[in-house]
Amino acid sequence: MNEKLQLNMINNIQLNNFRSYKDLQVELSKNINVFIGENGQGKTNLLEAIYFISNIRSHRTRSDKDLIHVEDDFARIIVNTEKNNKKEKIMCVIHAEGKYFSINNNVVAKTSDILGRINTILFYPNETKIFSDTPSSRRTFFDVEIGKTSKNYTRIFQEFNNLLKDRNRLLKEEKIDKILLDVITKKMIESQLFIINERKFITEFINNKIKNNLKKLSSDEFEIDMTYISSVKDLNFDEMLSKYNSNIDRDSFARTTTEGIHRDDYEFKTNGVEISKYLSQGQTRLVLLAIKFVLIDYIILKTKENPILLLDDVLSELDLNHQKKLIKSIPNYVQTIITTTEYNLVFKNADIRKYQIKESKILIKEDFDVKQ
Amino acid sequence: MNEKLQLNMINNIQLNNFRSYKDLQVELSKNINVFIGENGQGKTNLLEAIYFISNIRSHRTRSDKDLIHVEDDFARIIVNTEKNNKKEKIMCVIHAEGKYFSINNNVVAKTSDILGRINTILFYPNETKIFSDTPSSRRTFFDVEIGKTSKNYTRIFQEFNNLLKDRNRLLKEEKIDKILLDVITKKMIESQLFIINERKFITEFINNKIKNNLKKLSSDEFEIDMTYISSVKDLNFDEMLSKYNSNIDRDSFARTTTEGIHRDDYEFKTNGVEISKYLSQGQTRLVLLAIKFVLIDYIILKTKENPILLLDDVLSELDLNHQKKLIKSIPNYVQTIITTTEYNLVFKNADIRKYQIKESKILIKEDFDVKQ
Repeated sequence: MNEKLQLNMINNIQLNNFRSYKDLQVELSKNINVFIGENGQGKTNLLEAIYFISNIRSHRTRSDKDLIHVEDDFARIIVNTEKNNKKEKIMCVIHAEGKYFSINNNVVAKTSDILGRINTILFYPNETKIFSDTPSSRRTFFDVEIGKTSKNYTRIFQEFNNLLKDRNRLLKEEKIDKILLDVITKKMIESQLFIINERKFITEFINNKIKNNLKKLSSDEFEIDMTYISSVKDLNFDEMLSKYNSNIDRDSFARTTTEGIHRDDYEFKTNGVEISKYLSQGQTRLVLLAIKFVLIDYIILKTKENPILLLDDVLSELDLNHQKKLIKSIPNYVQTIITTTEYNLVFKNADIRKYQIKESKILIKEDFDVKQ
Repeated sequence: MNEKLQLNMINNIQLNNFRSYKDLQVELSKNINVFIGENGQGKTNLLEAIYFISNIRSHRTRSDKDLIHVEDDFARIIVNTEKNNKKEKIMCVIHAEGKYFSINNNVVAKTSDILGRINTILFYPNETKIFSDTPSSRRTFFDVEIGKTSKNYTRIFQEFNNLLKDRNRLLKEEKIDKILLDVITKKMIESQLFIINERKFITEFINNKIKNNLKKLSSDEFEIDMTYISSVKDLNFDEMLSKYNSNIDRDSFARTTTEGIHRDDYEFKTNGVEISKYLSQGQTRLVLLAIKFVLIDYIILKTKENPILLLDDVLSELDLNHQKKLIKSIPNYVQTIITTTEYNLVFKNADIRKYQIKESKILIKEDFDVKQ
């Protein structure tokens, strides 16, 4: 891999009153860590905690309160990280009223400053629905990925959303203030030009690399073409402005902004056909995994650091052959945490640390491979 | 079970040019049939064919053309069914231009008349997303289930949708024809009273029975409460009319009908909390399965016939203990077809017929259990 790659890992995690965990301490290996447990034992909650401290939000709920163990007042996540021998302790405390973060016991003033400290790539089973879901969910998917590596993107994207709200509010008024509309529209166009650029870049990046990843992951031969769909993507400032001006009548009738990056979409095709219509469930999962592996490279390119890979119940829906390929595809410079319901032969390898998880408590068994 | 239950089963299926199948013939056992194959071998396509002939639509694509094997002009599905010793041959031919059905070689004049000939209950992996998805997808989920057993429901529901479209078109006009609006609104209320009743009934039915099913399926103790959420559900005709009349200003400003059964939702809670926020992926799958098992009883109650149970990759995400419970929970009067990626010990039972599926061809191995 890249010579300049900064090796980034989590040495250990501590959870208090987080979801099903009253009190958990777990040391992680720098390679692959597998958590084996039956349904409902807390496997996903562990990944959620890591995801949360990385993304300052959960992938499962919008309400932070849901993360606090019932009957408790607060939840706490502590992770001790190591980046090229530099150690850092990141803590998050979640109250009913809000949350705060600290780094090495110094409280972080702006919560968003925690973003980018640890980057994660998470795979979870139902996520393959993005291929058949609404354009909005596909946009969010890639906006989150771009935002992980670019604070500018997150900021400008937020700015665009506020402008869009203002513009739509204006369009709902009986008498529209044309001058204000023009000002807002011009600012919106500037943000859009930036956002479109980043969306084009990630699309090209994935398109160039996905083929190779799919070959490693799948035994079938199929190619994936990702296309960025946008009615404004190929326009410059003036062309966009004239589009918005000629749209004014339509927009005021619809009382909303009918064109722009808030209507963009991404298309995934195999042999010219949408993958959600042609590929099997297992194959779709492999495509999503191939994208996730490209996203590892994307984060490394942008941040010079490896993300941590979180694979929630990744083996289900895959046959043994594809399970083996998947484990083999994990780069050795990426710390990985996998959850699974059953001990599986693909883990029979000295480089993989195995944990048993039961009722949100963890047992490490030294003689694990032998016993099974 | 019910003494009057008519035993309903599929004796065999023939597929020509359907998805990945060029030419397939398969005999089914009246109990549990398991199709074992690696990813992308055609397992789901087989279930899709049965689902299609039962529901005259696919659960994976809106475009029937996608079902035709590439390079071919038409696809054909034939199933030979048996209902209390009465045999019936149901055929469907799908062209690029449309589709037609025949029963015992007599073409069915109205495609919708095929509905209800064979009822199916299908489970597929990504379907658990309905719990976190939009209200619209939950409405569709239950509307399809109610429609399976009631042609009236399907008809009246379609009628309501047409009225709603008419009303919204009217609301978009500069000068609204108040008399026409009143006529449409009154007809809409009548349809809604019927639909609400059926939606209430299925909610109560599921609520009463789900607890028992969950106990059989899950080793954890958790209860599920399903609630039908609707701003109009408890109103009679006059109350609804006065609600619509008082909404007219809001509706004309919004240019759409803001209240009604097209905004209904269903809520699923455990201990007062939305299940999508609290249950694990595996537990959510068990809840959905428990609902599917209730729906078997619902269909039997309404039609006096058992549906056919189609379980696509149902074992993944479940640990061995829950896999066993699931197989045990399948009633012996319900013909079942299960797909799976790997041979699994839970199938080691004389009552389960096992098929291997490879490149859309099927091998039945007599010595299956012994060999593995």
